Amino acid sequence: MVVGSVALDTVETPLCRYRDSLGGSAVHFAMAARHFSKVRLLGIVGKDFPEDHVKLLENAGIDISGLEIKQGLTFRWEGRYSQDMNRRETVSVALNLFGDFKPMVPEAWKDTPFVFLANASPWTQLSVLNQVERNTFVLADTMDLWIETEKKGLMELLSRVKAISLNDSEARALSMESNLIKAGKRIQEMGPEIVIIKRGEHGATLFTGDRVFPVPAYPTMEVCDPTGAGDSFAGGFMGALAETAGTDPSSLKKALVYGTACASINVEHPSVDGLLNATRETLERRRIILQEILSFG
Amino acid sequence: MVVGSVALDTVETPLCRYRDSLGGSAVHFAMAARHFSKVRLLGIVGKDFPEDHVKLLENAGIDISGLEIKQGLTFRWEGRYSQDMNRRETVSVALNLFGDFKPMVPEAWKDTPFVFLANASPWTQLSVLNQVERNTFVLADTMDLWIETEKKGLMELLSRVKAISLNDSEARALSMESNLIKAGKRIQEMGPEIVIIKRGEHGATLFTGDRVFPVPAYPTMEVCDPTGAGDSFAGGFMGALAETAGTDPSSLKKALVYGTACASINVEHPSVDGLLNATRETLERRRIILQEILSFG
Repeated sequence: MVVGSVALDTVETPLCRYRDSLGGSAVHFAMAARHFSKVRLLGIVGKDFPEDHVKLLENAGIDISGLEIKQGLTFRWEGRYSQDMNRRETVSVALNLFGDFKPMVPEAWKDTPFVFLANASPWTQLSVLNQVERNTFVLADTMDLWIETEKKGLMELLSRVKAISLNDSEARALSMESNLIKAGKRIQEMGPEIVIIKRGEHGATLFTGDRVFPVPAYPTMEVCDPTGAGDSFAGGFMGALAETAGTDPSSLKKALVYGTACASINVEHPSVDGLLNATRETLERRRIILQEILSFG
Repeated sequence: MVVGSVALDTVETPLCRYRDSLGGSAVHFAMAARHFSKVRLLGIVGKDFPEDHVKLLENAGIDISGLEIKQGLTFRWEGRYSQDMNRRETVSVALNLFGDFKPMVPEAWKDTPFVFLANASPWTQLSVLNQVERNTFVLADTMDLWIETEKKGLMELLSRVKAISLNDSEARALSMESNLIKAGKRIQEMGPEIVIIKRGEHGATLFTGDRVFPVPAYPTMEVCDPTGAGDSFAGGFMGALAETAGTDPSSLKKALVYGTACASINVEHPSVDGLLNATRETLERRRIILQEILSFG
């Protein structure tokens, strides 16, 4: 299950542009996770949300019976990427209905074993946590905004989730440690057994217990649209965990490679096109290439 | 064989400081490479170069019969690192004798099979290239200064060496490509069969033929002094290649891991202390840990 934003995205990168396309954290996550596992999506959109987008989600096999369609407007985000794709500027953002979203987990979904709390206020994320079972594997994603403005809620969230993901500059800000390895370990001390530091084009590093697993990004040359890279990484990661229901170090490592493969396919295409059209075979091919690259035998 | 600077370094980092310590690219390289192979060092120092430093190099098993000791002053560099160690400021630099260094390769050294041309003007590097045999495996290191001021010499160098190493921002500047994978491939097109892009705390990426091998940094928490990280990486890499005399993809990958291990030990200690005191066993332990971390079986 993923709880998060379903959005209409308008994006301009040096290589592509689109208007009011299907986007949002929950959508990017689901588009990746669906290749591995059944996905339940909890979110909210307005009456302006195109019927085509609903169909697209349904046809992708995502269970959207938890997607509220209410009077009002859908979350809209407009962004523009720098020439080197490593920086982005938010041109405009309108939370609309998502701003007051109070996720209600359907009774039948409360025992979902793997839950992704996409980026949202820690209080919203905590409210979902209160509705699911205690032994659920919960990965929460967060961002600089909450570190700066909702530290208290974030610390409570950290004390209660199994895993947290955030990017490198955010990990440094939250831990007040410049060394990323120290930063990850410091964040583990705040509660989560597992910490994932996303390092953009350099990959990601997972901390579990006293073990540290850095994984480089898939060496792709065709970055077209970085939107949703982190969420599709999380989707591949959580989907792969859910598929085998294993959370031992070896399963975590394998899931990291699937997350990396999903993120690479996501960024090579505009909007959700990459993971919409990808097959499980495409993902397996990338997993094998990555493992081959990383086998320093 | 390494040709490059032998210096007196004065360094201040948030965790350590030292004055007029043994430093320089050639020294950091040699201190790593000596763990794997016999090392010949070609360089120049002045009469001010302490006898203790000469002894230290000799005791480390480095052949310094190619180290000229001339009337005049040794290359001096003074640097200061930022709080997060990721930026450094050159407080002062005095090339002294190194500024007019015309390396003369001893007759007996001309058939050395593996040669590292440490960072220097491309014209100086080319003059060494003219003195060694054609089928020598030459890795040249370069930096932004030469990309900006000696593009012509650098392009000639690139057309003649087997391998080049440079950091990520330099690779982007030289190739005029923001995507690092494209940047590496573009630089290969300029001549070198092998390109190594150093990515600091994120590791390094090696390009050989149409293969790309990213390797993350060793997850160290104790970065004390980043000075010489790139050169000790090159030392471990070239030393390991020289040890087995293999340059196939599998040897290159294994050498990358040794380079990574050497760089991590270098940065954990001030000046050359780390690799001076390390044993081969320490390096093997790190290689095994790295390979274990990277085996996504």
